[in-house]
Amino acid sequence: MSLTVVGSIAFDAVKTPFGERPKMLGGSAVHFALAASFFDSVRVVGPVGDDWSAAEDAVLHARNVNTDDIEHVPGKTFFWSGVYGWDLNERDTLDTQLGVFETFKPKLSAPAQDADVLFLANIQPDLQREVRAQAKNARFVALDSMNLWIDIAKDSLVKAISEVDCVILNDAELRQLTGAPNLIKAAQEVLSWGPKAVVGKQGEYGAALITKDGFFSLPAFPLADVHDPTGAGDSFAGGFVGYVAAHPDEEIGQDLLRRAMAYGTVLGSYNVEEFGTERLQRLKAAEINERVSELAKITHFEDRPVQLRA
Amino acid sequence: MSLTVVGSIAFDAVKTPFGERPKMLGGSAVHFALAASFFDSVRVVGPVGDDWSAAEDAVLHARNVNTDDIEHVPGKTFFWSGVYGWDLNERDTLDTQLGVFETFKPKLSAPAQDADVLFLANIQPDLQREVRAQAKNARFVALDSMNLWIDIAKDSLVKAISEVDCVILNDAELRQLTGAPNLIKAAQEVLSWGPKAVVGKQGEYGAALITKDGFFSLPAFPLADVHDPTGAGDSFAGGFVGYVAAHPDEEIGQDLLRRAMAYGTVLGSYNVEEFGTERLQRLKAAEINERVSELAKITHFEDRPVQLRA
Repeated sequence: MSLTVVGSIAFDAVKTPFGERPKMLGGSAVHFALAASFFDSVRVVGPVGDDWSAAEDAVLHARNVNTDDIEHVPGKTFFWSGVYGWDLNERDTLDTQLGVFETFKPKLSAPAQDADVLFLANIQPDLQREVRAQAKNARFVALDSMNLWIDIAKDSLVKAISEVDCVILNDAELRQLTGAPNLIKAAQEVLSWGPKAVVGKQGEYGAALITKDGFFSLPAFPLADVHDPTGAGDSFAGGFVGYVAAHPDEEIGQDLLRRAMAYGTVLGSYNVEEFGTERLQRLKAAEINERVSELAKITHFEDRPVQLRA
Repeated sequence: MSLTVVGSIAFDAVKTPFGERPKMLGGSAVHFALAASFFDSVRVVGPVGDDWSAAEDAVLHARNVNTDDIEHVPGKTFFWSGVYGWDLNERDTLDTQLGVFETFKPKLSAPAQDADVLFLANIQPDLQREVRAQAKNARFVALDSMNLWIDIAKDSLVKAISEVDCVILNDAELRQLTGAPNLIKAAQEVLSWGPKAVVGKQGEYGAALITKDGFFSLPAFPLADVHDPTGAGDSFAGGFVGYVAAHPDEEIGQDLLRRAMAYGTVLGSYNVEEFGTERLQRLKAAEINERVSELAKITHFEDRPVQLRA
């Protein structure tokens, strides 16, 4: 089986109350690929510039991520700079330099096109549609996006959504996209456009899964020390989509997707423990299963009906 | 067994995008009592003014809530007026008239003092301490508060907290109270002051329970239609504390408190379906157990460790 991800490859400058990094490896496709690499063989599609070096490739290769579809373009790699306040849910973007990402037109190699599972990380929705059309044999395609595209390319985004199996968005983005007052109504609207599953990411509060036949909600893994939330959503998506990719013989319904949510949650939780990709670079498989078991325990209560007063 | 609640009894004027009520029954003690009435015999302590009528008593009596400790004082009943926007997590207070609540000094009758379980709803923390001292035989005392008391009476609040078994606060209030950057650290700090359990309410995202020996998290019950969040936190507390009151023979640890969280969550969810106390007034016991079972289902995933890639 194989998993292709298309998205940004970046250098990030990040400052949080717990430290800072002037230039570290980042980008949605990178965070996704490192997380998904625990589940399947992953191929990254995206552009990098002249400032990309063998050291960055080495990080991906250490997790057996295939970098053959990384396109080397004259210019600078996408650069994002941001600062988080004491409330890590809030961040200010200081600088965005698109660099080689500005003129990026994804061209998938034959093996990338042949992927069993495809993840369209947050890029312009018309590009997502072109990529989706190239991956003719994918049995599961998931998509992320952001408020920018809802603002300036909503029609394209709605079309892109109608062509995928699963949408993974922040709950605020789902409400903005649909104009619905809450996650449930927003997800129902999105399901009516075609996808079989909607994941509403809720940051430190966890994530919810909505399909036509059910609802599931999972808190974030509780952490006393969070150092940098950058990439958490992409690591979540990597764990979630990776888990689906690793189970080709199972029906894609609530059972499978709920377990995928748990793995996504755990990958996201490790992501935020350190800056950028630092924690995932040295993450061990056993740590993942351990934390999933812990997550099952901390969300369990015994359903024991009681005699109530009329 | 018996449960005493001390708190506000009020008339509320509320406007949300889904309707409005110019004057309806409200107040923390009222919302709490109606929710807790499904679990135990409940006694309400609080002041009302000349505008209080038999119709309001009748609402409480219909749920067998004992109103003997409601103090009738010349003047006006506490009045709160607020408006919610499209995002029901945000509200603006338009008017607060303390009325008879301004000079309220709780005096518990002998039966109220003799309560097995006591809930100190959000009132001035020195008053909470006086009430706590009167209820000498209570085996479980829980406390709510608000940002106002953290701002102007923090030392008193910390003392009040050190004298109770359980603290039920919004997660933002827990962070403000302790200066800790997240719920886990904030709860650990509060536990170090004395209480055995901390509940962090997270509004539409649910609630978390932290004790010395464990962590538990539960999402809010998913609702497509929320009409008025007023009183949801107090109904949650009523279900939570009521459940504990109804199980006098069980050890107060994670097992019991997790089930109590589920009942609190369900009572809170019914509260917000209609305005003020309207939904709880006609709620049936069977509906509560049904929704708790549903909540157990929508939070469950199978913990099935997988072979991950090294």
